[in-house]
Amino acid sequence: MASEKIDGFTLEQRHGKARVRLGRVWRSQSGRHIFVEWTVSISLLSNCLAAYVRDDNSDIVATDSMKNTVYAKAKECAQQLSMEEFAIKLAKHFTSFYQQVTTAIVTVEEKPWERAYIDGQPHDHGFKRGSEMHTTEVIVEKSGALQVTSGIQGLALLKTTQAGFEGFIRDKYTALADTRERIVATEVTASWRYPFESLSGIPLQPLYFTERYLDVKKVLAETFFGPPRGGVYSPSVQSTLYQMAKTVLNRFPDISSIQLKMPNLHFLPVNISSKDNPAIVKFDDDVYLPTSEPHGSIEATVSRIRAKM
Amino acid sequence: MASEKIDGFTLEQRHGKARVRLGRVWRSQSGRHIFVEWTVSISLLSNCLAAYVRDDNSDIVATDSMKNTVYAKAKECAQQLSMEEFAIKLAKHFTSFYQQVTTAIVTVEEKPWERAYIDGQPHDHGFKRGSEMHTTEVIVEKSGALQVTSGIQGLALLKTTQAGFEGFIRDKYTALADTRERIVATEVTASWRYPFESLSGIPLQPLYFTERYLDVKKVLAETFFGPPRGGVYSPSVQSTLYQMAKTVLNRFPDISSIQLKMPNLHFLPVNISSKDNPAIVKFDDDVYLPTSEPHGSIEATVSRIRAKM
Amino acid sequence: MASEKIDGFTLEQRHGKARVRLGRVWRSQSGRHIFVEWTVSISLLSNCLAAYVRDDNSDIVATDSMKNTVYAKAKECAQQLSMEEFAIKLAKHFTSFYQQVTTAIVTVEEKPWERAYIDGQPHDHGFKRGSEMHTTEVIVEKSGALQVTSGIQGLALLKTTQAGFEGFIRDKYTALADTRERIVATEVTASWRYPFESLSGIPLQPLYFTERYLDVKKVLAETFFGPPRGGVYSPSVQSTLYQMAKTVLNRFPDISSIQLKMPNLHFLPVNISSKDNPAIVKFDDDVYLPTSEPHGSIEATVSRIRAKM
Amino acid sequence: MASEKIDGFTLEQRHGKARVRLGRVWRSQSGRHIFVEWTVSISLLSNCLAAYVRDDNSDIVATDSMKNTVYAKAKECAQQLSMEEFAIKLAKHFTSFYQQVTTAIVTVEEKPWERAYIDGQPHDHGFKRGSEMHTTEVIVEKSGALQVTSGIQGLALLKTTQAGFEGFIRDKYTALADTRERIVATEVTASWRYPFESLSGIPLQPLYFTERYLDVKKVLAETFFGPPRGGVYSPSVQSTLYQMAKTVLNRFPDISSIQLKMPNLHFLPVNISSKDNPAIVKFDDDVYLPTSEPHGSIEATVSRIRAKM
Repeated sequence: MASEKIDGFTLEQRHGKARVRLGRVWRSQSGRHIFVEWTVSISLLSNCLAAYVRDDNSDIVATDSMKNTVYAKAKECAQQLSMEEFAIKLAKHFTSFYQQVTTAIVTVEEKPWERAYIDGQPHDHGFKRGSEMHTTEVIVEKSGALQVTSGIQGLALLKTTQAGFEGFIRDKYTALADTRERIVATEVTASWRYPFESLSGIPLQPLYFTERYLDVKKVLAETFFGPPRGGVYSPSVQSTLYQMAKTVLNRFPDISSIQLKMPNLHFLPVNISSKDNPAIVKFDDDVYLPTSEPHGSIEATVSRIRAKM
Repeated sequence: MASEKIDGFTLEQRHGKARVRLGRVWRSQSGRHIFVEWTVSISLLSNCLAAYVRDDNSDIVATDSMKNTVYAKAKECAQQLSMEEFAIKLAKHFTSFYQQVTTAIVTVEEKPWERAYIDGQPHDHGFKRGSEMHTTEVIVEKSGALQVTSGIQGLALLKTTQAGFEGFIRDKYTALADTRERIVATEVTASWRYPFESLSGIPLQPLYFTERYLDVKKVLAETFFGPPRGGVYSPSVQSTLYQMAKTVLNRFPDISSIQLKMPNLHFLPVNISSKDNPAIVKFDDDVYLPTSEPHGSIEATVSRIRAKM
Repeated sequence: MASEKIDGFTLEQRHGKARVRLGRVWRSQSGRHIFVEWTVSISLLSNCLAAYVRDDNSDIVATDSMKNTVYAKAKECAQQLSMEEFAIKLAKHFTSFYQQVTTAIVTVEEKPWERAYIDGQPHDHGFKRGSEMHTTEVIVEKSGALQVTSGIQGLALLKTTQAGFEGFIRDKYTALADTRERIVATEVTASWRYPFESLSGIPLQPLYFTERYLDVKKVLAETFFGPPRGGVYSPSVQSTLYQMAKTVLNRFPDISSIQLKMPNLHFLPVNISSKDNPAIVKFDDDVYLPTSEPHGSIEATVSRIRAKM
Repeated sequence: MASEKIDGFTLEQRHGKARVRLGRVWRSQSGRHIFVEWTVSISLLSNCLAAYVRDDNSDIVATDSMKNTVYAKAKECAQQLSMEEFAIKLAKHFTSFYQQVTTAIVTVEEKPWERAYIDGQPHDHGFKRGSEMHTTEVIVEKSGALQVTSGIQGLALLKTTQAGFEGFIRDKYTALADTRERIVATEVTASWRYPFESLSGIPLQPLYFTERYLDVKKVLAETFFGPPRGGVYSPSVQSTLYQMAKTVLNRFPDISSIQLKMPNLHFLPVNISSKDNPAIVKFDDDVYLPTSEPHGSIEATVSRIRAKM
């Protein structure tokens, strides 16, 4: 937030354009097309106190102009680039083009279009929507200081066994029994920080960020599930979350910290009885009631010591 | 709807239980688990006029009992079965168990959990959520008469070229130009009718309906996209829809009709100009504005002549 | 649906434009503004087989032209009119202007903007969004035949007592106990048919349909709740639904039938116990668990005998 | 977040239970009922490192126990209380009852049930759902330190005139024209901080927080709209937002800061032309296209100097 003092108050403010939708096609001579659909949001921290307190808009970047800039910059990108690179390009533009802007925050969400396959052959220009979503947030300051955070939303994972929860605090509010056999399901929201601290430090390798996104997603899922035969026991969502985070950090030295939000989406054992029928349904690790609310909420950030997040 | 006359009025009514959520695990000795998550809704047409007009509930099946029945029947299914089979089993139960019930309508939606793969190996008990959803609606009458409709929701398909729209009606309200180059995107909702007209006519082959669902989905996508190299030209959503429906009917003799709803989700060419800058952005088949509203709505049902839908 | 035979198939089809969003301001010289926000959807049944089977679009009304027509017609309306009148005006246009169009179906949803009040004074041009939504569907045929249906969506009503459910069918799946004391909550979706059968039969009174909407909404709520002191006992949702429908039909001779969908949104008694603590929470008509799923689904249509719906 | 060092990493974590749904009825002898529906979420910061790194759950408060506590505490509240008081009561419980818990964060959202009126008479036990939602977040530390933030979500306001936007930065990306006549619409999300810094400092007046919520909502709307006759000119959303925040702070000395998020939900002038028809629709402050995306995003926090937020 841009912060200023006025009238005996502190005013912290930002303004921008949210949900600018962009489709970009790159066409090669071979007939192979590349396609992305991005939803871009921009927030600018800028010196524009006069608009708030003196009805003077002369330091305001119109949000309509921000929107136009998204399309103009997308056009300038003649080659496919990662959404992180695009966000950096935009943020850099706003902080350098406008004297008033001290910081630009650009987020991008990618609609999960995946190349279609016909009998194992990739299609030239056909795409089908997949599931989880790649996200990024980039912050650029006028000085060139930079933060890049990437993430995943909506990565839903479930295992039907190899999970339990035992030995927790028991008190007068406790009704839950210990168990070594339950379904664990979650919808992972992940975000991780890259260590690059200025515009000059970004890797030049094309699609570097896109590859890293795919790598991290793979590691998160594999650590959650364990080996194909037999899996791995989860003594709590906390423990599994920590293993997932630790494995990402150990595998990728260019990630300085990772935050995981892993709601515990309960699958309740179904037992139904009445006075007349003590076992309308009696649970035997077979029939479950999936629920969305309430759900456990477990979240943690694991950082290398020295990393700043 | 169950229909009766009373007080000078016609009363048509039904009641049921919606959104009964069910998870079912089948465990094999080898350690391989099968898992489904279904959301079941039940509507009963029954003779229960007294509840409406005389405050007498003695002919009412409590919706809580319907819910219990879903879990009890799921438990009884010792082997994996298709959601269509499960819906038929439930509907048959309601029409035979309750003298008052003349017709049962059961719908099921399947959450798209897919078996997880680790480096190409299928996981014993790990599942990841995919995208589009399998649906069914089954209607069973006391006589044993049957209708089975299956479908897909949320199958989003897009192609970046090989589409146009020309030669339509031009009048004083027309602003759209002819084009032979555009993006076509849609989110297909499909439903198809099977020809079985009574409980006794259903195929005995296990997972028959599950396989047919996968077959139809594949044909729909392949017809939309055309060959991997070069695709196929779409002169209108209408034409593409008709090809998709016709191909399904030609390929599968056990489908008597198919309905397709294919909203035309527009990707608008981006052109931005101002008085001072005639080309802030000038479209060259590269930068698009994806929109959700308004959208074209195209829907059609194609049936074999003689088929009833 | 427009239906035709081709290639050994029957093709039933329609196309249109969905979610055309419109804001309309009428300004009076006194400074008092009238404002509505409508979302309009149009479906046309038309003779355009060639587009489906011969890639010939010459009988297709472009959905972009339909969208333009919505705005052009809104502009022509120099005086405030009800959304039903607007839908009729549009539908009439499509069936008379285009030779190919045999039937037009127009739906409108109104965003519930309500005039703002400041210390009891109505504001000239300020509006605040309310809750439930007014809807309509109008069907006009080339012959001038007409159907007008209006409705309400999202009318959520709840009473904390004066409701029970007793004497229903008890069998081996029944776990629910009889009760004479429960919360009843629902979110009413209503739609009612007007008896006008042709364009020439519509009342000329300005805002006739708007007033009737407000009348029906008031009667539905009052019948659900009963008198301010003491209320009225509800022996089942079925009974309450029927009273609501009957009261509307008895009060308004110009309504020929009414459909009510009244999901039973359960508020479950909270009882929590454990082996060690038999009464973590013991229910005493005080603490409830509100649930959205599963929910009972009760729906009925009550028509005057002779009415067609 | 509770923060600890382990394995060369910093681990910051919290866990809790989200979306615990609660209905509470208070019944008076006169027959008048009070009813609230709250959705409660709890996050605990606690010393439970062992669960993450050593698979030892002995310091974990089960989220199921947290849920039970919500219902148990709701039952203990024999008199109506504000949702802020309830959140404080819960948070205080968790930090005092569990030795491991250092901080509790409790949020509550209230479903906007409003007492029903029949011909101007308040109903004893009937409620109808309104629109915008009251929210709160309470943070309590083991020491007794306290933060109380309350807010509004979904307060949609619109005025059809008395708004403009002029004199902003013009550059090569600018296409927007200056205007002194436009619709301004927003959906206000507000949150404000109370100055109480410890449990002992909270006002004893019953329903203090509930009254303040209603007061703030009234002031926000009135400042947005201006006088009933003629309104007040808005030169930008920024200026209007600042007036709204300043008026709240000037009016209520017991509010130390207020944050307002006011997306600019655009109503675009409708102008449609084609080569053949230069004025299919020509805008004259009458016909608008309401849009949801993209939208301007304007947010600011105004604090008394010395206030901490």
